[in-house]
Amino acid sequence: RTLRIGLIPGDGIGREVIPAGRRVLESLPSSLNLKFSFVDLEAGYDTFQRTGTALPDKTVDTLKKECDGALFGAVSSPSTKVAGYSSPIVALRKKLDLYANVRPVKTTAGSSNGKPIDLVIVRENTEDLYVKEETTRETPEGKVAEAIKRISERASMRISTIAGEIALRRQKIRAAAPATSTRTEPMVTITHKSNVLSQTDGLFRETARRALAAEKFSSVLVEEQIVDSMVYKLFRQPEYYDVIVAPNLYGDILSDGAAALVGSLGLVPSANVGDGFAIGEPCHGSAPDIEGKGIANPIATLRSVALMLEFLGEENAAAKIYTAVDANLDEAKFLSPDMGGKATTQQVLDDVLKRL
Amino acid sequence: RTLRIGLIPGDGIGREVIPAGRRVLESLPSSLNLKFSFVDLEAGYDTFQRTGTALPDKTVDTLKKECDGALFGAVSSPSTKVAGYSSPIVALRKKLDLYANVRPVKTTAGSSNGKPIDLVIVRENTEDLYVKEETTRETPEGKVAEAIKRISERASMRISTIAGEIALRRQKIRAAAPATSTRTEPMVTITHKSNVLSQTDGLFRETARRALAAEKFSSVLVEEQIVDSMVYKLFRQPEYYDVIVAPNLYGDILSDGAAALVGSLGLVPSANVGDGFAIGEPCHGSAPDIEGKGIANPIATLRSVALMLEFLGEENAAAKIYTAVDANLDEAKFLSPDMGGKATTQQVLDDVLKRL
Ligand SMILES: CC(C)[C@H](C(=O)O)[C@@H](O)C(=O)O
Ligand SMILES: CC(C)[C@H](C(=O)O)[C@@H](O)C(=O)O
Repeated sequence: RTLRIGLIPGDGIGREVIPAGRRVLESLPSSLNLKFSFVDLEAGYDTFQRTGTALPDKTVDTLKKECDGALFGAVSSPSTKVAGYSSPIVALRKKLDLYANVRPVKTTAGSSNGKPIDLVIVRENTEDLYVKEETTRETPEGKVAEAIKRISERASMRISTIAGEIALRRQKIRAAAPATSTRTEPMVTITHKSNVLSQTDGLFRETARRALAAEKFSSVLVEEQIVDSMVYKLFRQPEYYDVIVAPNLYGDILSDGAAALVGSLGLVPSANVGDGFAIGEPCHGSAPDIEGKGIANPIATLRSVALMLEFLGEENAAAKIYTAVDANLDEAKFLSPDMGGKATTQQVLDDVLKRL
Repeated sequence: RTLRIGLIPGDGIGREVIPAGRRVLESLPSSLNLKFSFVDLEAGYDTFQRTGTALPDKTVDTLKKECDGALFGAVSSPSTKVAGYSSPIVALRKKLDLYANVRPVKTTAGSSNGKPIDLVIVRENTEDLYVKEETTRETPEGKVAEAIKRISERASMRISTIAGEIALRRQKIRAAAPATSTRTEPMVTITHKSNVLSQTDGLFRETARRALAAEKFSSVLVEEQIVDSMVYKLFRQPEYYDVIVAPNLYGDILSDGAAALVGSLGLVPSANVGDGFAIGEPCHGSAPDIEGKGIANPIATLRSVALMLEFLGEENAAAKIYTAVDANLDEAKFLSPDMGGKATTQQVLDDVLKRL
């Protein structure tokens, strides 16, 4: 099988980590019988400044017509409001209907916090406040701006269903390696703020409950947490959680919070998942402070490559990458500066490649 | 001066901690020349079940006509949707125009994390998604619900102004006790998500920038953080922050996150502040799991009493309470179970009272 992968480095360190992602795909053992072809695509603030659009039609069209998956680096946000500029990754998620943003967070020997964290945040990726329907009006007391938060039964149902499926799949993996985990039951925690938003978050909560009550999820423990309390619990007892499902904005906030627990955003991958398509995307930003220095941590990207492969049905290839990355972190010989090490992007990459 | 204080215990452990708040006021040294009278008021889920409303008009009227301030305990949220029920504290904040929710978070000897945290979250308290304007419609693909997020220039201006004033006041206190702090400049960090919500959060950001550019804040350092990154930073470098100003919902989430850093929600106070009126409110909930056991931590309430007094212009009385509470925590002899101790609510209270 040959997979065609779109490469969208974006801005800043995106240009340093996406090439590392390409290299890991090219270096997978031939025994996997998997080939890759690549196409370079543009998006980001730089693209906007050059062409007047942050997400050229060509990028979207090529992904839709030619590609099986893609890797997305990072984009810079302008530091003041710039007319016409709008985040390309948010647009891409919607245009390709990549309805789930999957963000696993896991401790390894390398991470600072003592508790063994192994959770995944499954974030709805197409609606909520991210519909970006906003208006502003002038009043005698000054400007008043409004935004729409939209929650649909359909999107809540499919995100909760994939959350349940991910919980079952994780349980299967744990069952195969019982020594590394103490969790005995798969669990999904539904996050919302229905004590204030009874209709929107209420709909998310009810629909998630209904989705997870399906026969196939009968072995899955279902709990819920109000979002503020979820952040509190995430920091007090992160080891308790398995799959956390949340509307778009809460998922955005929770995944950065969870990343803080394992030491560095430079470790945390994500995949934007739709039916038959996935974009791997490191959770970190474009990091202007270290741009061009060759010291960006490539781990989040390498794990995002693996996550993309998982959702394209290539679980064996994914496992190879995860194992190589974990070995690099466990040995802790080649770590980038954000992890307290001195290795360059290239050295970390080389160390992972040699373990494939 | 005699202050008339409304007492609204609400549900669950609210009924155990609010009496402790009353006792600390009654026990303040007479040298302060401050007297208190009290009026018992109703609100909460219990009240709703008995009377059909969670916030009786009488409670609002009495607060408006008779009181200088109030103490609010906690309310239980129903575990499934209940028609007609709506959070009384959210309504109270709006009806009394208590536009600022002030939530200081501070380490003491007793708290677990090694870093000396001393920050305050200043949360806008009247708008954002808390306007609770929601609609639901049926579509061929199922239900779709929408909520309004409203951000006004007026509310953003006054919350940012009070945030700046709080930063200056904190700096004055630090200058008087230089040994306890390493911070040399007052700072306000503006939190928003204007990279996605350019109009609403964009308005908040611009207005906050303008408010804090006023001459009287020239000594205040002004920074900003996107909300997801703010949660990350809060956990990675909490010691860096001073005053964090945020729209309502982000402030709600950030304050629970900050509470997790200092060990227990049972320590964290808040005040709902309007012009000439303040309601002290512990940040914790009604805690049904420990209700009626007499072991609720009264510290968050005692500190909320002090915070209320501060905003009623009684800074000396407030200082007495803070000092007594800090001494109780530093000695760590009478700590409630959430803090790893064995003391009852009454024992913690008695220990604080004897230090006044
Ligand atoms: C850059 C920004 C628009 C984006 C988001 O909010 O989704 C980012 O924070 C993320 O989590 O991928
Ligand atoms: C109980 C709930 C409505 C409330 C809020 O969201 O404001 C609480 O979380 C708080 O922080 O005071």
